[in-house]
Amino acid sequence: MTPQEIAQADADDPLAFARARFSLPAGLIYLDGNSLGALPVETPAALARVTQGEWGGSLIGGWNEHGWITAPQRVGALIAPLIGAGADEVIACDSTSVNLYKAAAAALGLRPGRAVILADADEVPTDLYMLQGLAEQTGASFRAVPESGWERALGEHTALLCLSAVHYRTGAVRDMAAWTARAHAVGALILWDLSHAAGAVPVDLNGCDADFAVGCGYKYLNGGPGAPAYLYVARRHQAAAQTPLPGWMGHAAPFAFEGEHRPASGMTRWLAGTPPILALAALEAGLRTFDGVDMALVREKSLALGELFLSAVQAGAPGVFEVASAPAPGRGSQISLRHPDGYALVQALIAQGVVGDFRAPDLMRFGFTPLYLSYAEVAEAARRLCALIESGAWRDPRYAQRLAVT
Amino acid sequence: MTPQEIAQADADDPLAFARARFSLPAGLIYLDGNSLGALPVETPAALARVTQGEWGGSLIGGWNEHGWITAPQRVGALIAPLIGAGADEVIACDSTSVNLYKAAAAALGLRPGRAVILADADEVPTDLYMLQGLAEQTGASFRAVPESGWERALGEHTALLCLSAVHYRTGAVRDMAAWTARAHAVGALILWDLSHAAGAVPVDLNGCDADFAVGCGYKYLNGGPGAPAYLYVARRHQAAAQTPLPGWMGHAAPFAFEGEHRPASGMTRWLAGTPPILALAALEAGLRTFDGVDMALVREKSLALGELFLSAVQAGAPGVFEVASAPAPGRGSQISLRHPDGYALVQALIAQGVVGDFRAPDLMRFGFTPLYLSYAEVAEAARRLCALIESGAWRDPRYAQRLAVT
Repeated sequence: MTPQEIAQADADDPLAFARARFSLPAGLIYLDGNSLGALPVETPAALARVTQGEWGGSLIGGWNEHGWITAPQRVGALIAPLIGAGADEVIACDSTSVNLYKAAAAALGLRPGRAVILADADEVPTDLYMLQGLAEQTGASFRAVPESGWERALGEHTALLCLSAVHYRTGAVRDMAAWTARAHAVGALILWDLSHAAGAVPVDLNGCDADFAVGCGYKYLNGGPGAPAYLYVARRHQAAAQTPLPGWMGHAAPFAFEGEHRPASGMTRWLAGTPPILALAALEAGLRTFDGVDMALVREKSLALGELFLSAVQAGAPGVFEVASAPAPGRGSQISLRHPDGYALVQALIAQGVVGDFRAPDLMRFGFTPLYLSYAEVAEAARRLCALIESGAWRDPRYAQRLAVT
Repeated sequence: MTPQEIAQADADDPLAFARARFSLPAGLIYLDGNSLGALPVETPAALARVTQGEWGGSLIGGWNEHGWITAPQRVGALIAPLIGAGADEVIACDSTSVNLYKAAAAALGLRPGRAVILADADEVPTDLYMLQGLAEQTGASFRAVPESGWERALGEHTALLCLSAVHYRTGAVRDMAAWTARAHAVGALILWDLSHAAGAVPVDLNGCDADFAVGCGYKYLNGGPGAPAYLYVARRHQAAAQTPLPGWMGHAAPFAFEGEHRPASGMTRWLAGTPPILALAALEAGLRTFDGVDMALVREKSLALGELFLSAVQAGAPGVFEVASAPAPGRGSQISLRHPDGYALVQALIAQGVVGDFRAPDLMRFGFTPLYLSYAEVAEAARRLCALIESGAWRDPRYAQRLAVT
């Protein structure tokens, strides 16, 4: 794109209004919303309201007076339209890892006589670890299989197939309808991890007949560092599916303090401990940044931003990077570039005011969040990356120093 | 106590300085810090700092720049002195329910060949439900036994005894050293739920040779509604004990994204998902209300406040209530009174500006939090309760209407 075309794209951007919903440091180009979403302008006030106003003003009465007790369901209902779910099919609680454990255990319970959990060998590691942990607890068999082997691995012993809708490193988009159908064809259930998909690409869980899904609140949903996660259970499974973590908040009558667990109806049974009200208020404010936003426009702009970045980098630094992400539309909202010194390059680029991130061993990830990025910023980010390659400034040893979090 | 004695007790109160650390509505007498602690004055600023300052200013860089990545350990280290633990034996994460599941599963792993988990039949229900859920997942045997039967039930098949240090309804204080020794005598491990003890009564986990403990961040620790909970694992078990929820944050090298789980050393392995940074900041501010506070003085004042309340109620409304809490020092920081219309009485008392709570079927709970309550307030609360009994105003049908949360 020429500078004129870039300026025109920003002038014509139907999502440009959303930028004012975020508070970003002046001059910073933030290409890491796929790792931690930016701070919504409304979040500090939402936190002050729930803290000083509700907790400080009502104390224990806040559970009734301010609807705290239904916050997990209310926030779940805000997530639902982003993932093609009914408002009564999603609940916000715990972490993605813990919700994955719950859903996978429930799937085993729904498929007695089948003991195999299948997952992508290249899945985001926490999912692999949690499924392995579940297998060790239950005696189920866990198999991590490369993508080329998924279809062959599905069979009469498969209880569950667990996949990410968008791959965390490459951004590869999975055909959710097709994989769900393949799992169902052998009588297995499917569990989708939507962490890198929800809020970035249109997701239609009900349209593809999914069984379970989980996802993260702190990436594209802008809920803040370590925000609560969410769990989806298809309506048809809600009566029979049982959580392995049946805490009091999932009881049909938590304040009756009965000695035996009686699961609540609907999604409430998936709660374990007391809902994290302050964190849920921040997640709710994060989700409000999607108010009135058309996900088709988000998808269109994110692909265009990614294309702009990639073509500018390939033109400005030809042959330097191996492109690890698929061509559009086979990728989510990120461009991943391989480089043996990717870590130092990402650090040097951050020093230049462009934030991406790094995934071992050699992957530079750049996320394109259409709600708060302009075409001009993305073009400038590509220009700075190419200038770094040109100058070699990234070879300064300080950029190779490993930080705790990459 | 005479009015003069009450005024003198407040004037002489060595903990009076701590009242200024809390923000409470004017005129409200809050006797429910055992259910949800009051708002610390510093919490709103702490949340604003981590939200606007750290998240807004550093975005993903906050994990390194602001020490987010070690927040669970840092907050755990603040809890440690309140429960007689080393700073390296406590971590703040997840909910009490989820931490209980982790600890109980780990205990089963440390006691191969033993399959029985024992708990108090009158335990706080979420603990019973979680242990039952774990038994169903693992094939272990769960037995809920009344207090009179604990000693007989302990035996060669017992892997774990799970008890609350302070009972949630009656406030009864358990002899932690004695029950730990009894469990150990038969080769079993012990898991203490400290939710109603930590911050209220002195707890000495290491002194009594405990194995595991969990507890809640939102009661006496003042972390806010649904605050993160904590987990203690005795140093001698840390190398061998394994979590059933091995998420990426408990990995030895989470950012290496390895396919196999390698547990981190120390308490870090007990993390599952990404730490909830905003909620941990609020909990940290809550714990700071204990800075420079002597727990022996807390205990002394809480017993004195409880005694003042109980004797004033018994004098002003003789024979009306059955006292469900033990005489000092056998009770924690609460007085529990039975009354067939306890629910309506609690609601009517709230309308009079005195907040207690109710636990089915007939228990009125009044918590005495020495950091923010004065002797005069407690005397006034007792006076208002007696006046309600005298007037019968609590019989108004509106007070019998059940709210979602009691």
